[in-house]
Amino acid sequence: MVCTLNKWLMTQVLKTTVLLLISVATAQKSIAQSGETLKVRNYVTTQQGAIVQEFMSFLAIPNVASDTANIRRNARFIMDMMKKRNIANVQLLPGKSAGVPPAVYGEVKVPRAKQTLIFYAHYDGQPVNPAQWAAGLSPFAPKLFGGTYDQSKPVESPIAGAFQPEWRIYGRGASDDKAGVMAILQAYEAIVRNKIKLNYNLKFFFEGEEEAGSPHLAEILQQHAALLSSDLWVICDGPVHQTGKKVVSFGVRGDAHLDVTVYGPKRPLHSGHYGNWAPNPAMMMAQLLASMKDADGRVTIPGFYDDVTPLSATELKAIQDIPDIDSQMREELGLGWTENKGKRLNEAISMPSLNINGMQSGNVGKMASNQIPTTATAVLDLRLVLGNDWKRQQQKVVDHIQAQGYTVIDHEPTDEERGRYTKLARVLRGEDGYNAQRTSMDMPIARKVVDAVKSTTADAVVLLPTSGGSLPLFVFKQYLEAKTITVPIANHDNNQHAENENIRLNNLFTGIETIVGVMGMKE
Amino acid sequence: MVCTLNKWLMTQVLKTTVLLLISVATAQKSIAQSGETLKVRNYVTTQQGAIVQEFMSFLAIPNVASDTANIRRNARFIMDMMKKRNIANVQLLPGKSAGVPPAVYGEVKVPRAKQTLIFYAHYDGQPVNPAQWAAGLSPFAPKLFGGTYDQSKPVESPIAGAFQPEWRIYGRGASDDKAGVMAILQAYEAIVRNKIKLNYNLKFFFEGEEEAGSPHLAEILQQHAALLSSDLWVICDGPVHQTGKKVVSFGVRGDAHLDVTVYGPKRPLHSGHYGNWAPNPAMMMAQLLASMKDADGRVTIPGFYDDVTPLSATELKAIQDIPDIDSQMREELGLGWTENKGKRLNEAISMPSLNINGMQSGNVGKMASNQIPTTATAVLDLRLVLGNDWKRQQQKVVDHIQAQGYTVIDHEPTDEERGRYTKLARVLRGEDGYNAQRTSMDMPIARKVVDAVKSTTADAVVLLPTSGGSLPLFVFKQYLEAKTITVPIANHDNNQHAENENIRLNNLFTGIETIVGVMGMKE
Repeated sequence: MVCTLNKWLMTQVLKTTVLLLISVATAQKSIAQSGETLKVRNYVTTQQGAIVQEFMSFLAIPNVASDTANIRRNARFIMDMMKKRNIANVQLLPGKSAGVPPAVYGEVKVPRAKQTLIFYAHYDGQPVNPAQWAAGLSPFAPKLFGGTYDQSKPVESPIAGAFQPEWRIYGRGASDDKAGVMAILQAYEAIVRNKIKLNYNLKFFFEGEEEAGSPHLAEILQQHAALLSSDLWVICDGPVHQTGKKVVSFGVRGDAHLDVTVYGPKRPLHSGHYGNWAPNPAMMMAQLLASMKDADGRVTIPGFYDDVTPLSATELKAIQDIPDIDSQMREELGLGWTENKGKRLNEAISMPSLNINGMQSGNVGKMASNQIPTTATAVLDLRLVLGNDWKRQQQKVVDHIQAQGYTVIDHEPTDEERGRYTKLARVLRGEDGYNAQRTSMDMPIARKVVDAVKSTTADAVVLLPTSGGSLPLFVFKQYLEAKTITVPIANHDNNQHAENENIRLNNLFTGIETIVGVMGMKE
Repeated sequence: MVCTLNKWLMTQVLKTTVLLLISVATAQKSIAQSGETLKVRNYVTTQQGAIVQEFMSFLAIPNVASDTANIRRNARFIMDMMKKRNIANVQLLPGKSAGVPPAVYGEVKVPRAKQTLIFYAHYDGQPVNPAQWAAGLSPFAPKLFGGTYDQSKPVESPIAGAFQPEWRIYGRGASDDKAGVMAILQAYEAIVRNKIKLNYNLKFFFEGEEEAGSPHLAEILQQHAALLSSDLWVICDGPVHQTGKKVVSFGVRGDAHLDVTVYGPKRPLHSGHYGNWAPNPAMMMAQLLASMKDADGRVTIPGFYDDVTPLSATELKAIQDIPDIDSQMREELGLGWTENKGKRLNEAISMPSLNINGMQSGNVGKMASNQIPTTATAVLDLRLVLGNDWKRQQQKVVDHIQAQGYTVIDHEPTDEERGRYTKLARVLRGEDGYNAQRTSMDMPIARKVVDAVKSTTADAVVLLPTSGGSLPLFVFKQYLEAKTITVPIANHDNNQHAENENIRLNNLFTGIETIVGVMGMKE
C-alpha cells in the first residue's frame, strides 16, 4: 500500500506550492503569529509529501510493546530518522533485562544555551484487534483517506491533488503516539532548514512501552540520569482540544487496572435444565459492576473520591476558561446523557474515574447458545488524580468486591475453594499502574512554553491543569526531580486506543509548527 | 479420526462376548427386569462396536441448522440408516420454502395393532465455537475418550479392550440429539433381530431445526397431518436424572429470546479523556441486567411470575418424589450457592426463568484496551412454564427495559434518535419462541410408557411433570391434537449446547434398551 502511494506522494511536493500561497494568504489574518511561524508554515507546506511518506513507512512497522522484534525495528527506524537529521549521540537506552523495549535517545548541544529541553514521545501503541477495524483498514497497513470523516466509514481514498487538511491517515500509532515522534523530528528538521535560532539545548527521548504501562521507564531513567538531565520535559502525546484549539497541559491522570472474573458452574450448563437454580456468572458480574456506580455514573465504592488533592486557584480558573464543548461533544458522540450530571467534561476528568474497558461472558450474536456460562470477566480501568495512590485505589475496589459477598482470590478457584466459599472473584491487580502528576502553572518556564505555543496560532490556547489521559509522568519527578509539560498535537476524534485510529493531516502539520515554537522558545 | 478407530472398533464385536457374561451376571440382581430386557441387553452388548462406529460416522456430519448443505447430508444419512433397517415409506418431509431443514420420516405397520407410537428426535445441533472446545476436541470430528471424566480435560484416549461404560464420545450432537436418533434406530433394529413382539404401529420423525427454534415444524406437521397421525409422540431428547436413574417426562418448558444492545458513544473513546463523563455502555448494561434479578436470583421484572398454571396434586407429588440431588449437583458443579434460596432444582425449573446466555462489550484479556466501548450486548433466554405466553413474557422484559429509562428500538439508532432520547436499547425479539407443554400423568397410555421404562431397569424411574429444557411440543398439540411424552437417554453432564458436548457410552447403550421397552410396550 505504501508503495502504491509513493509515486503519488512524490508529486505532492510540487503541487503543494499552490497551497503554500493560499496558506500565506490565510495566515495574514493572524495577528498573534510571528514572522518566524509563517516561515515555518510555508516550509511545512512544501514538505507535506515527504512528511506523509516518511510517517506512513514508520506506521507500517507493528508497534505493540510485547512484539519484541517489531519494537526493535521501530527503534532502529527512529535512530535512522535522527541520524539523517544530524542529531548527535543517537543511541538506544535499554532496560536491565533482555527484551525490554528500548528508549531511543539523541541530543543537540546549542552554544551558549544554559538550559535544556527534552522532548518525549512514545513509539509503541495499544494492542489491536484487526477484526474490529473498518473494512479496508488494518492497524499496520496505514492508509490515507479523504472525504468527510466518519469513523465507521473511512472508505474514500483521496483524489489526486494537493493534500487537504481534513484528510486522515489511519493506522495504530497514527495519533498515539508515533505522531509525537514524527512531529518532534520534523520540527527539528524545520528548525535546521529554516535556520531558526535555538536558545535551549535539545534532547530527545522516545519510549517503547508506554501503552504497556511503562514498566521499565523508572529503571531506564535511573540508569541514564545524567544523560537525561534537563530543565523541562516536553511531552508530545494526546489530543488538542475538541474545539481544535491548541493545548498546553500541566498534568496527567494516573492509571491502574483490575481484571475481575466471577464463577458460575464448573462446566457450562443447559439454561433450561439449570436456569433459575445454578447461578449465572454474567448476572453475578452485572450485579457486581452495577454496585460500583449509581445511575448518575458516580462511583459508589466507599472512599473512592477520598485522597484527592484540591485544585489551586490558578487551576480552577484555567478549568473555567476552557471552552465549553460539552454540547458539541454530546452531539458528535451521539450521547443522550452524560455521567456526573451537571459536571462539565473538564471538571469530570479532574476526578478519579472507574471505567469498564470490556466485559464478557458466554457468547452473543451468532455464537450465542442457551447456556449458563462458567465465568464472566470484566477489565476495569481506574484513572487517578493528584493525591490518589494507585495501589490504594485498587484496594478500594477489591474491598468493595469483598463487601458484596465475594471471597477474592488471585488464581482460578480450586474445588476446595468452590466448596468453602459462597462466591468467588478472581481479581488480578494490574501491575502497570502509576500515580497522577501535576506541574505548577505558575513556573516561569511553564509560562514560556505557553507563550511559545501561543506564537504559533491565531487562536486561543487552552490550558489544562490536567489531561484526562495518563502518562507515567510521576516517574520523571520521582527519579529525575524533573518537571513535565505536555504539548499535544493529535485531533481529539482520533480513535486512540481503539479501532480505526487516525491522525488528521492538519493536526500533523500544525503540530510540527507547535513543536518548532517550543523548541525555539525564548530564554 | 473415525477411520483410524475403525479397525479397533471392529474388534470390539468379538471382545464384548466377555462383557456379555459379566452383564448377565449383574443383571440377575434385578428383580424388576423382564427376560426380554436381558435378551436385549445381551444383544446390545454384542453390538457395541457396530453401534459406536455408525454413531461416530453420523456425528462427523456438521449439523448446525443454518448449514443447509450439511443438514441435507445428515438427512440422507438418516434415510440410509432407516432403509438399511427395512423401515417403510422412508421420505423427507420438506417445508414449503427452499432451504428448510427437512424432517425425516419412516414407518412400520404392525398387523393387528390398533394404536400408533411415533418416535421423535432431532438431528440438528446448537451453533458451535470450536475455539472454546478443549484441546484435541472439535465439534465435528467426534472422538471417543476413556479415563475419568473431567469436562475441562477430556484427553485420555481409550486403551484397547472392551468398551467401558464410563467412556464418552465427544462431538456436537453426541447427546443433543443425534443420540436420540441413534437410540431409536438401534432400538428398532434390536426389536427385529431379537424378534420382540410389537403391539403398536411405529412411526419415526426426525427434525432438522429444533435448535434453531423449530420455525417450520408447524408447517411440516400441518402439511403431513394424516401421515403423522398417532396416539402418542415419544420424544427422545434431553438427559436422564442426575442420579443416573431413567426418566419419563411429561412436559417441557417454553422458550423465548431477547437480544439487547445499549449504546454509548458513537465511536470508541479514550477512557482517560472521557471516562467519568461519556456513558459506558458496559456499565449501562450491567445496571440494566442487575435490575432484572435480586441478589437471590429471583426475577424482579413486574409480573414475571404471573400467568403460571398451578401444578396438579399428582404433579406436586411427583416433584416431591424426585430424588434430591441438589447437594450432589452443587458439589459436582462447584457451586457455593444457588438461586431461589430454599427451592430445590426441580421446584425451580417449574417456574419461569431468565438467563443471560452471553454478554459482551469491548474486549477482555489480551485484547483489552483503555477505551469506552460503543455498545454492550446481552442475549437473554426466557424459559416458560404452562400458562406463560412467550410473546407476553418477552413483552414484560421489554416493558421493564423501558421502565429503566430506555427508549426501545428495533434497529441501530439514527443520529436523530440519539439526539432525541436519553438512553436507547435495541431489542431484537427472537422469533423462535414457543410456549410450554405438559401432558397429564394420569392418562392410561402415559402409565403404559412408565411401566415400559420401569421394565428396563432395576432402579426407580424418575417421573418429571416437566423437564427444565424446551422442545416445541406445543405444536404437536396445536396442529395434530397429539399427546407427547419424553423419554430421554443422555447423561446429565453432557455439556449439551456448549463446548465439549458428549455422551457417556453406558447412556447410549442403556438408552437403546429403554427405547426397545417403549416400542414393545403392552397394549
